[in-house]
Amino acid sequence: MPLYQCLTPAGSLDADRRADLAEAITAIHSSATGTPRGFVNVVFTEYEPSAFFTAGRPNTVSVIGGTIRAGRDRATRAELLTRLSEAWTAITGKDARSLLVGLDEVDPTSIMEAGLIMPAPGEEAAWLERHRHELGDLQSST
Amino acid sequence: MPLYQCLTPAGSLDADRRADLAEAITAIHSSATGTPRGFVNVVFTEYEPSAFFTAGRPNTVSVIGGTIRAGRDRATRAELLTRLSEAWTAITGKDARSLLVGLDEVDPTSIMEAGLIMPAPGEEAAWLERHRHELGDLQSST
Amino acid sequence: MPLYQCLTPAGSLDADRRADLAEAITAIHSSATGTPRGFVNVVFTEYEPSAFFTAGRPNTVSVIGGTIRAGRDRATRAELLTRLSEAWTAITGKDARSLLVGLDEVDPTSIMEAGLIMPAPGEEAAWLERHRHELGDLQSST
Repeated sequence: MPLYQCLTPAGSLDADRRADLAEAITAIHSSATGTPRGFVNVVFTEYEPSAFFTAGRPNTVSVIGGTIRAGRDRATRAELLTRLSEAWTAITGKDARSLLVGLDEVDPTSIMEAGLIMPAPGEEAAWLERHRHELGDLQSST
Repeated sequence: MPLYQCLTPAGSLDADRRADLAEAITAIHSSATGTPRGFVNVVFTEYEPSAFFTAGRPNTVSVIGGTIRAGRDRATRAELLTRLSEAWTAITGKDARSLLVGLDEVDPTSIMEAGLIMPAPGEEAAWLERHRHELGDLQSST
Repeated sequence: MPLYQCLTPAGSLDADRRADLAEAITAIHSSATGTPRGFVNVVFTEYEPSAFFTAGRPNTVSVIGGTIRAGRDRATRAELLTRLSEAWTAITGKDARSLLVGLDEVDPTSIMEAGLIMPAPGEEAAWLERHRHELGDLQSST
């Protein structure tokens, strides 16, 4: 957590741009929320270019769908959306109209990462202390 | 918003049927909720035919997963589900048992489209007025 | 419902392992929640091996994303997560660190399966009775 799933038209992003976007998404999420970088996951999948429609007509929108922990306030979510869109346009050279960004909020106690169930809001400090050993790699990935 | 992601067995829908489904989904969502057509997005992705299981046995179900703004009442969601299923069976000729439809409700302030963060419930009129210029294309796609 | 979507690196799971995982996920969900097996759906999709990043660096994590009915208590969700992770490591031989599991909770009245809208919490018994005929196949798949 989080997991950002980027769904793009096939062939529209080369490996370098994907790597740049993954780095930007990781940096933005980490700085906006304080989440250690080691918890930020990004994956790219593709659709056939003729498979996307807006208003019933063919279109070539890309989608960034983030699954994030529930409870981020409106200002934090607005910062995420705005900076993600800015990074997208800067890295891809495409217009903001070609991007749809959504953040789906999930109860952290419904997430398991590296074999550990995430802590509920307010339990983070005790959880980090208890799992310090297992979390070594994730926490140091800053 | 909304975004309807249709996940189907590879090769099961030709381009014409996808276009027909995209048009039907757009018309249904727009008429059931009052959302301008320009906000309705539909994308089709596929899975390998042997990759779906129900009750642990191979199956070939298609999935329509809609991400819609939170707060639609139960009657509206029931109308969406019922009409989406009817359109699916009419256009594909398949049985309703081959379809799973789900609507995932997301806080509109967690969505950005065309560079604009969606308004919270109750803020729509002021938001539309404020962004009339940027929204020109989306709003006129009716 | 539920629908478990497994997103894995291309080529990392052969057909036998997918079938074993589908069976395990079905058995775990059914026993942890009491849901009849006939309602449990599992689908596998893939990403290009270079398309996943953690902390901005290439990684090869698999994701099990379950869409489940809202209202499962924390202990039930913890049991699901723990047993899903255990089944994953047992069947694939991979480390728990290579897996991310998330459960997205959806209002059951936003789900349609086999042409039927799912009942709200508390309405299940009356719903099962009313739809006994249509549900024959799903219920007997135990």
